[in-house]
Amino acid sequence: MNKITTKNIPVSQMPNGDTLSIKVIDIKGDNQGPSCYIQASMHGAEHQGNALIYHILDYAESHDIQGSLRIIPQANPLAINTKTGNYTQGRFNPNTGHNWNRLYSNYTDNHPSLRTFAKNNINASDESIKNSYKKLLLELLEKEKELKSSYGKNQNKHHNLILQSLAANFDIVLDLHTAGKAARYLYAAEYLSSRCEELNFVHNIIIKNIFNGAMDEAAFMPWVNLKTEFKKLDKDYEIPFESYTLELGSEEMISLEEGKKDSHKVLEYLYKKGIIRESGFQEPLKKQYKCQTEDFKSYYAPNGGLYEYYAKPGEFIKKGESLAISLQLSNYGSKRQVIEEVKAKKDCIIINHCTSSSVIEGSEIYQVMENYYT
Amino acid sequence: MNKITTKNIPVSQMPNGDTLSIKVIDIKGDNQGPSCYIQASMHGAEHQGNALIYHILDYAESHDIQGSLRIIPQANPLAINTKTGNYTQGRFNPNTGHNWNRLYSNYTDNHPSLRTFAKNNINASDESIKNSYKKLLLELLEKEKELKSSYGKNQNKHHNLILQSLAANFDIVLDLHTAGKAARYLYAAEYLSSRCEELNFVHNIIIKNIFNGAMDEAAFMPWVNLKTEFKKLDKDYEIPFESYTLELGSEEMISLEEGKKDSHKVLEYLYKKGIIRESGFQEPLKKQYKCQTEDFKSYYAPNGGLYEYYAKPGEFIKKGESLAISLQLSNYGSKRQVIEEVKAKKDCIIINHCTSSSVIEGSEIYQVMENYYT
Amino acid sequence: MNKITTKNIPVSQMPNGDTLSIKVIDIKGDNQGPSCYIQASMHGAEHQGNALIYHILDYAESHDIQGSLRIIPQANPLAINTKTGNYTQGRFNPNTGHNWNRLYSNYTDNHPSLRTFAKNNINASDESIKNSYKKLLLELLEKEKELKSSYGKNQNKHHNLILQSLAANFDIVLDLHTAGKAARYLYAAEYLSSRCEELNFVHNIIIKNIFNGAMDEAAFMPWVNLKTEFKKLDKDYEIPFESYTLELGSEEMISLEEGKKDSHKVLEYLYKKGIIRESGFQEPLKKQYKCQTEDFKSYYAPNGGLYEYYAKPGEFIKKGESLAISLQLSNYGSKRQVIEEVKAKKDCIIINHCTSSSVIEGSEIYQVMENYYT
Amino acid sequence: MNKITTKNIPVSQMPNGDTLSIKVIDIKGDNQGPSCYIQASMHGAEHQGNALIYHILDYAESHDIQGSLRIIPQANPLAINTKTGNYTQGRFNPNTGHNWNRLYSNYTDNHPSLRTFAKNNINASDESIKNSYKKLLLELLEKEKELKSSYGKNQNKHHNLILQSLAANFDIVLDLHTAGKAARYLYAAEYLSSRCEELNFVHNIIIKNIFNGAMDEAAFMPWVNLKTEFKKLDKDYEIPFESYTLELGSEEMISLEEGKKDSHKVLEYLYKKGIIRESGFQEPLKKQYKCQTEDFKSYYAPNGGLYEYYAKPGEFIKKGESLAISLQLSNYGSKRQVIEEVKAKKDCIIINHCTSSSVIEGSEIYQVMENYYT
Repeated sequence: MNKITTKNIPVSQMPNGDTLSIKVIDIKGDNQGPSCYIQASMHGAEHQGNALIYHILDYAESHDIQGSLRIIPQANPLAINTKTGNYTQGRFNPNTGHNWNRLYSNYTDNHPSLRTFAKNNINASDESIKNSYKKLLLELLEKEKELKSSYGKNQNKHHNLILQSLAANFDIVLDLHTAGKAARYLYAAEYLSSRCEELNFVHNIIIKNIFNGAMDEAAFMPWVNLKTEFKKLDKDYEIPFESYTLELGSEEMISLEEGKKDSHKVLEYLYKKGIIRESGFQEPLKKQYKCQTEDFKSYYAPNGGLYEYYAKPGEFIKKGESLAISLQLSNYGSKRQVIEEVKAKKDCIIINHCTSSSVIEGSEIYQVMENYYT
Repeated sequence: MNKITTKNIPVSQMPNGDTLSIKVIDIKGDNQGPSCYIQASMHGAEHQGNALIYHILDYAESHDIQGSLRIIPQANPLAINTKTGNYTQGRFNPNTGHNWNRLYSNYTDNHPSLRTFAKNNINASDESIKNSYKKLLLELLEKEKELKSSYGKNQNKHHNLILQSLAANFDIVLDLHTAGKAARYLYAAEYLSSRCEELNFVHNIIIKNIFNGAMDEAAFMPWVNLKTEFKKLDKDYEIPFESYTLELGSEEMISLEEGKKDSHKVLEYLYKKGIIRESGFQEPLKKQYKCQTEDFKSYYAPNGGLYEYYAKPGEFIKKGESLAISLQLSNYGSKRQVIEEVKAKKDCIIINHCTSSSVIEGSEIYQVMENYYT
Repeated sequence: MNKITTKNIPVSQMPNGDTLSIKVIDIKGDNQGPSCYIQASMHGAEHQGNALIYHILDYAESHDIQGSLRIIPQANPLAINTKTGNYTQGRFNPNTGHNWNRLYSNYTDNHPSLRTFAKNNINASDESIKNSYKKLLLELLEKEKELKSSYGKNQNKHHNLILQSLAANFDIVLDLHTAGKAARYLYAAEYLSSRCEELNFVHNIIIKNIFNGAMDEAAFMPWVNLKTEFKKLDKDYEIPFESYTLELGSEEMISLEEGKKDSHKVLEYLYKKGIIRESGFQEPLKKQYKCQTEDFKSYYAPNGGLYEYYAKPGEFIKKGESLAISLQLSNYGSKRQVIEEVKAKKDCIIINHCTSSSVIEGSEIYQVMENYYT
Repeated sequence: MNKITTKNIPVSQMPNGDTLSIKVIDIKGDNQGPSCYIQASMHGAEHQGNALIYHILDYAESHDIQGSLRIIPQANPLAINTKTGNYTQGRFNPNTGHNWNRLYSNYTDNHPSLRTFAKNNINASDESIKNSYKKLLLELLEKEKELKSSYGKNQNKHHNLILQSLAANFDIVLDLHTAGKAARYLYAAEYLSSRCEELNFVHNIIIKNIFNGAMDEAAFMPWVNLKTEFKKLDKDYEIPFESYTLELGSEEMISLEEGKKDSHKVLEYLYKKGIIRESGFQEPLKKQYKCQTEDFKSYYAPNGGLYEYYAKPGEFIKKGESLAISLQLSNYGSKRQVIEEVKAKKDCIIINHCTSSSVIEGSEIYQVMENYYT
């Protein structure tokens, strides 16, 4: 049967002396197979990944897996514990404002070791390349950590490096997030734009194979960079590694029932990857919609006021249809309108809207997919 | 037809020099009648009152009223504008922590003028008492404002005194609030425990005739105190004044459609009071539930974790049934349970639950009515 | 030699599963003597108490004490760890807005056990009364904790009850705080208005013998209430217990050097109480100033703007002299003044001013002692 | 005499309906001359620029200038007005976490108009180039604003574009900031590394001629890009434009007296630029220290605790000397040290330290200049 081990990694000593820690759960099957790393709650208000993980753990307790899983349910204790009012202000570091999911390291960028590695492994088998490259990544990460900590460890950056190290040895990285009031959707790199269908999301945003600081990018960039180095040597290399950001609906809530459905997406995917043996958790979707990053558009509030969000996550909206209205009773009795309407500029699918009705002029109120295709 | 006038009252100059202001909308009918004061958004995240007011204004534009309405849609600009992350931290002053609805003044408490007034008016008609007492209240409020501002005006207390002055001349005061994730419910003073049924709320919390700092109490206490003074002179005086706190569901959202239903409660009430002529907005409810303040109970989180709130606002829950579970994956692989259940200690009606799943041990997670009666 | 033991008391499990804890340091001398409880950092931004405690611990490691000391350097981990921007928002619960030092329990208020105790101990010796009353207090606190936790433990109130229990068995309670930008000063109860001179503070605010929710009051109220019960039985009882709030200057900073001077105040006091044997840490002050709570006045900002605080903590200011100016460049070119002056209404000693120059109209900018006497 | 005009530009409608605005003060001399734009308080807690501006305005009221000054004392009302506790959380957008001084637009980056402009103006006089290029910049900014607002105006980005437009027509841009607890220092671009001495700062950080989102960079990048385009056409072009970030000491305070000294730096500089006629405000400094950005180093807290910052802004510290100690009394009685020392890794000048003693492990505690030169 599977061997399940857990450990706690201390990450941040607080001013009062207590130290926050990360729980790491490792599940190893008796047989060889691919390895998958799953983390959740990097943003502190995004809890639903924990409901998904609960069901994955439940499954792994009673079913043999091949290969291994590493699961980190609460990747960012400091963010998870930061409350203001009743809500969790977990999107950015309350100290610095840095988005918690934008400070990962692009440690292989232009690194000379990659060129050397490519040269030395030009004729190696894919399996051998994968395995020795992972070792290189772990080494480079250790050096990066040392380099970056000579004047003390920057809390934010070091934390991200710890997570990168924990994930570096894996074939698959799944980073579980949520948006505000949102549909479920997936971020996939361009090189995974077909393969991503295996994860069975209705909505898929295809991002460039470049680095903007997030975990999925931080995980795939070393492989993109390796492919580039091989290309320079005229070798076509297919990246064996996959990483995705899974957006599991709305923030600030969990639902175990929804989490079961969410886990089925992942279990079906793990089956396709050969990590689990059972299948049939989910019917394949009839339609999956994709769009490019630049077609994942934001609407901004044309005025300050109280917004009612008519267009709901997942809905198809036609150009000119109403997205929301704003109510501004301080305009009563003046020439300005008490109610203003915000209309769709183009046909779109609603993905996310703001979590609060009270909105400052210019705040982001909607995120939508335009120019989507199947 | 009705005469509708509006004015802006400046209330707080901000550090950058701009001044926030309150909009006051006055509606006077051609004929005499009672007067009703309605304010909303004293807590910054509690928006639904604005949706109710929108429909009241709509009604008043096309229907004659008798008497007058004064409407303040956004009673607390500083609270409304205070955002953290996407949410509105509008429950307490971000500077001091003071709950915005607990710093009203109990300016008639033990005030010698009341005794004198009672003596002088012992034989006056009820109408005469009401009218001359309102004049006294306005005078006392002006004195209170002067007294309290000799070293500068405390932002919080002065703001509340402004609102008290704006409301002092009215026969009815309705303060529109919401709770977190909540049913609609009403706070009514003991002396209004029968009359409150006119407002047609399913759930009604009966509070003592005493002062805890809130607007409804601040509005009725002068009348309770007058009754006490008359009592000392052996006169039984029935308080002609009514004030209520209306809780209009959940915070951080507005719904014009729900607001229409909410406005029907108030319009039907205004009909019963003689301020409007039409009725039939709402069927009387078959059942209205009441409980005493001390039976409006809070549950606190037995541990830190991610809570799924099973029991929903408005539900009747039996002793021993599940309210919520907490998920704590850091317990995985330890002796502690990953899932803990919170059960009802007694039969209850769910009124409100916490707006976030991520909860620190000891946070308030539920508010319920116990020992309720019809 | 002294026996020093330490323990950690877990107090709040955070959403991520880690639990914050309180460190308790107990120091017992070989010989009998009075007992003193010292806590610091109940408000999270008030650190200087830790510097004082550092030197007390240093002293206790090399000098015999008589009786015992209990020291809790960081009484409120949740408050200490709550950062916004670079600052510590530790004055009130970020969840509820409740001032952390206003939710202690007045558990002996009107409690029938006190009457019984007074009757039963009317002829007992002072020593016997003190000892058996402390036992009663511990029992009542345990009952209070049980009673208050039947629906889960309210984080805030339960935390305060834990601290009250830890302090209940002691003869002296010192609660170490700081203000914003402040002089050092002391809060002492009326019944201690002479005895408080032993603590050697230049500035002393004499508070009523009543309960407003703070630790010093929570600690002395059971003794005030006992005195009242004895009084009803015609027994004059001198309260053997003392509790004080020590304000150690400005928040958000520590200074070990200043902390050494601060510790000398406490060591000299402990000498006078018979807990330590050495004296001469400090010369007695030539002048100590006192005023009543109602003469501890606040000034509020007459307008929003940038304030320069001319009058510094500890200064004597005459009526009409300048306290501060506000700079408001948005008034430039208008009829309003760019610079406004705030003048003293009466002669006063400056105790505290606001920590930021940017101020909303009506914010508290100064706290001063008026009608002070020596 | 000078002509002084003022206007208010509305920038953000708040949820309650009030609109925050920016005050623009324009001062035009009778005679031609260069133009200088000065803004302050882009970060909300950085007030001292207003004290400097106060004295510049005072000067301009009684002394003829040549050319013009535009002054925006409070560039970011939303940031200035955002208070938490007593402090101003004005470093980043409380809604999104974005640093207010990192979202300016690099609107000329790779823009084809620049190539065309360079070709068309290859033989034009420097004066003509400067004037017609400024016109081009204003046009490009208008297009950028239009382009970026098709789905509504992103509050943050649009605000920055407004400021860029207000500054685009000027020869000099001075952006007034402060750091935490800091010395006065200057950020200057590489191409200004000699000229910057005219501003008479002791401490000067030389940044690359590249864009990282800040105002000074946003202002000089169009000129750097123009120079690059001319270079491609083999024309050596000396940039006539200058922009700097002036760091005026510590945040959250103003001092008019210090502001007078600060204004003397700027007045002397304006004299050197030919905008004012008087000189002699300041003696030239004997020594000015410079270092490259990569030598402007940060130290991070090695552990959580209470820090006392021994090394003060402006001090020269030798390698191995003490910067700070941390006090952690929760270590008392354990193997871990109660006091830890943070030592300098290299010789350095202290520029800035953290504003709070209570620090989470990994927080930035010091910023220092290394490898400085004169």
